[in-house]
Amino acid sequence: MGEPHAVYRVEVLFGDCDPARLVFYPRFFEWFDRATWLMFRKAGFEGDALGTVIFPLVDIKSKFIAPVRWGETLEIATTVLEWRRSSFRLLHEGRVGDALRLSSEETRVWSVPYEGGIQPTEIPSRIRAALPVRPGNPGA
Amino acid sequence: MGEPHAVYRVEVLFGDCDPARLVFYPRFFEWFDRATWLMFRKAGFEGDALGTVIFPLVDIKSKFIAPVRWGETLEIATTVLEWRRSSFRLLHEGRVGDALRLSSEETRVWSVPYEGGIQPTEIPSRIRAALPVRPGNPGA
Amino acid sequence: MGEPHAVYRVEVLFGDCDPARLVFYPRFFEWFDRATWLMFRKAGFEGDALGTVIFPLVDIKSKFIAPVRWGETLEIATTVLEWRRSSFRLLHEGRVGDALRLSSEETRVWSVPYEGGIQPTEIPSRIRAALPVRPGNPGA
Amino acid sequence: MGEPHAVYRVEVLFGDCDPARLVFYPRFFEWFDRATWLMFRKAGFEGDALGTVIFPLVDIKSKFIAPVRWGETLEIATTVLEWRRSSFRLLHEGRVGDALRLSSEETRVWSVPYEGGIQPTEIPSRIRAALPVRPGNPGA
Repeated sequence: MGEPHAVYRVEVLFGDCDPARLVFYPRFFEWFDRATWLMFRKAGFEGDALGTVIFPLVDIKSKFIAPVRWGETLEIATTVLEWRRSSFRLLHEGRVGDALRLSSEETRVWSVPYEGGIQPTEIPSRIRAALPVRPGNPGA
Repeated sequence: MGEPHAVYRVEVLFGDCDPARLVFYPRFFEWFDRATWLMFRKAGFEGDALGTVIFPLVDIKSKFIAPVRWGETLEIATTVLEWRRSSFRLLHEGRVGDALRLSSEETRVWSVPYEGGIQPTEIPSRIRAALPVRPGNPGA
Repeated sequence: MGEPHAVYRVEVLFGDCDPARLVFYPRFFEWFDRATWLMFRKAGFEGDALGTVIFPLVDIKSKFIAPVRWGETLEIATTVLEWRRSSFRLLHEGRVGDALRLSSEETRVWSVPYEGGIQPTEIPSRIRAALPVRPGNPGA
Repeated sequence: MGEPHAVYRVEVLFGDCDPARLVFYPRFFEWFDRATWLMFRKAGFEGDALGTVIFPLVDIKSKFIAPVRWGETLEIATTVLEWRRSSFRLLHEGRVGDALRLSSEETRVWSVPYEGGIQPTEIPSRIRAALPVRPGNPGA
């Protein structure tokens, strides 16, 4: 498999965990969102370079293979699976050490403000170029 | 379609929303989890009647059809799709008025504490009986 | 003591709680924020009637008298303590049954958008009139 | 002022922010809690070295001097202000660059599990020794 486009490291602490001492699963989605923004930042896109775009989700498919526990360190590897005209697909894989604990595919829409709401818009070629889909990547 | 097993109503407020004034999507998963626990409560299961069980997720498939906005009222209808030996499948459908805005299928494992962790256990028949899968329900 | 201006009821569920099965304290602040917006809604102010105002915090003083546990029902009574020109003080009191578990005083600024940020503005008299500080209220 | 005992750095991202593009204030308390656990970790205390202790809050006093915005980097400096027998006081100061944006004093109780709940216990001397209150520190 190809190299992920970014890796986001999370120290799993008390406040992330539920009464079973396991990460409460909505936290994973908060971290996937952070991982996504940080992937763009790492590629040079944030603030003015990114503009007013946001990336609402339209589709999620997640597998939780084993729980993540209080005190563990979770590394979330994020990979661009596909660029479409105005949407893109990401894979987030969460590992503790070498063990895959969860993975999640998501489709996000490249969206800009429009008349008090948002609307999809074409993904700029400089974004595609900076985060190319790699031949060895899953889904490619 | 059959009647859902429970409906959870959420007033979408300021703190639920992101800079686009739309619900930040991890909040939906927090609400699905609330909806799940409240469905069991409505059926008479909470505290001692439920015991030490928790319901970790192993699989999620979600569709976000249209965003949910600050100020809207979201109704989450939760339906049991299937009872398996030690896991079950739920459907959460989120509507604003009559419009379906999102739906999410999830598989959860009926789990109890075991040696400092958790392990799956058989779902009691009184639970299945109280929340029967309905012929007209989606997935049935 | 006078009647509070609003009461917000929270079922404390699994996802609100930490590994000690107690409410993780940032959740209380999420609920205080919900309680504040719902107090204005109850008084007739939301959406267009409220306009673009938001209420950022400048000061908080909180006492946590006893923990709130998974499965309990928390009632948060919210009282306006003082209207100033462009800020106001609230008291949130959290009870389980009759027992006071926590209380929090906060000062919020009546703020509107201004040049890409926000700025304080005078609180409209119709707001003050709808939510009068009561003689018997704490702090009055 | 003395050196803080730990500094926790937060990239303020989309999901941390509210419709005004400012950090939604309960997030600060989530970060203060992370900062507290990470301070103990930095001093060598986590997992078995810390045992089953948790640190519930009994008192908070916070000042929000200026909002923190989407895209900013917040540094939270955490300082032990006082060790008491079974409680301790912390100061969290949040800065963006050199500008102090918020500060919060909190009192936490050193607590261990007891009969299905928790109870205060004496703070071990090795903890006090590892995180000494410094003469130049605020509050010292």
